[in-house]
Amino acid sequence: MIELWELVGQSDRRYSTFSWRTRMALRHKQLAFTEQPVLQTDKAAIAFSGGRTVPVIRDSETVVRDSWQIAEYLEQTYPQGPSLFGGSTGKALCLFFNTWVDRSVVPLAFRGLACDAILIQDPADQEHFRATIEKFTGGSPDSLKLEQPKTFERLRAALDPARATLKRQQFLGGSEPCYADYILFSVFQWARIVSPVSILPADDPLQVWFERILALHDGYARNTLAFY
Amino acid sequence: MIELWELVGQSDRRYSTFSWRTRMALRHKQLAFTEQPVLQTDKAAIAFSGGRTVPVIRDSETVVRDSWQIAEYLEQTYPQGPSLFGGSTGKALCLFFNTWVDRSVVPLAFRGLACDAILIQDPADQEHFRATIEKFTGGSPDSLKLEQPKTFERLRAALDPARATLKRQQFLGGSEPCYADYILFSVFQWARIVSPVSILPADDPLQVWFERILALHDGYARNTLAFY
Repeated sequence: MIELWELVGQSDRRYSTFSWRTRMALRHKQLAFTEQPVLQTDKAAIAFSGGRTVPVIRDSETVVRDSWQIAEYLEQTYPQGPSLFGGSTGKALCLFFNTWVDRSVVPLAFRGLACDAILIQDPADQEHFRATIEKFTGGSPDSLKLEQPKTFERLRAALDPARATLKRQQFLGGSEPCYADYILFSVFQWARIVSPVSILPADDPLQVWFERILALHDGYARNTLAFY
Repeated sequence: MIELWELVGQSDRRYSTFSWRTRMALRHKQLAFTEQPVLQTDKAAIAFSGGRTVPVIRDSETVVRDSWQIAEYLEQTYPQGPSLFGGSTGKALCLFFNTWVDRSVVPLAFRGLACDAILIQDPADQEHFRATIEKFTGGSPDSLKLEQPKTFERLRAALDPARATLKRQQFLGGSEPCYADYILFSVFQWARIVSPVSILPADDPLQVWFERILALHDGYARNTLAFY
């Protein structure tokens, strides 16, 4: 059975953006797995991976870290399951998509919701998380909270190419979800786990698509502790 | 033989961004075609297409307009040639990429180079092009020229996800070019046809990739009248 290391907050909230990419990839591939929750400050728990970040998976003797590398590993190791990339061109374009999300979407989502996300951190992680916020945004939770509506506006604008695409097809992968769907999904999933404030209006095509992903794999992603 | 309608400027410059996507798609598919140059103001020449923009292609009895729809048509009609999308997932992700380029890259490139592009327009098109500039940028060629270095800076920053991706693979399509490569290529190809000012430094991974596309299909895209 595959083991997945991921972050945990108060009340057992499983909020890690990047681990959600791996969770959804594992479900997509119809692979069984168990979760190993770790704190952000407990680097010793994942030292065996050679890195300092989750997700990490262990599949028998094989340890893989980094959500992109895990997706590549799963696609290659389990070709019999539904494809994550739909071939080499799909995989190459997914890498672009991954980069776009990580550079154009994640930083704005973090800036918008870090002020709420700190409130659900385990007490042992709060100091560390505050320093992370300062490092990545140059602001404090209080100053970011004041900016929140404006940051959400920027975030919604940055999402424009994805919104326009999802007006024309059900999933980023077309008529079926692919790994790109899980990449963008992970950001909104993080959002609903760490904050009661929603980013998108209900009639936004992105919100409609998000609900579609929540319903996949027997409503798997919906069934985690979240605010909405 | 397929016919392609595209724009023409002074000295027979074939500068249309969107027609370059079609040109490269046709070459990729190893299809022979002839070009029909038209002026921007000569809407009558393409009225048969039902639209007011190039590219338009006529393939025997079939007329198709809009670069994306033409790519879809070619892929479907000529499955025996090299694939433009590499399957349905690749096509779906290409649609996202097309949207990203058209919304995040094209407007900045136009803002940056419209002031030079007006100089190579056919005299009959200059008034029309000036109005287009005003409409899309809110500025005049002179005011845009003053902003040019700053606009290029914004453009280079907007291109960051593509640059980071091309540090990791030869083409956006992976080890081989796909239609996504031609989509982004078309912007830089337009740039080198309409202006002597280059946007990217020679060692930018995007410039290295651009040269790689110029060399494809026996240097096809290089052999058009351009400034560099």
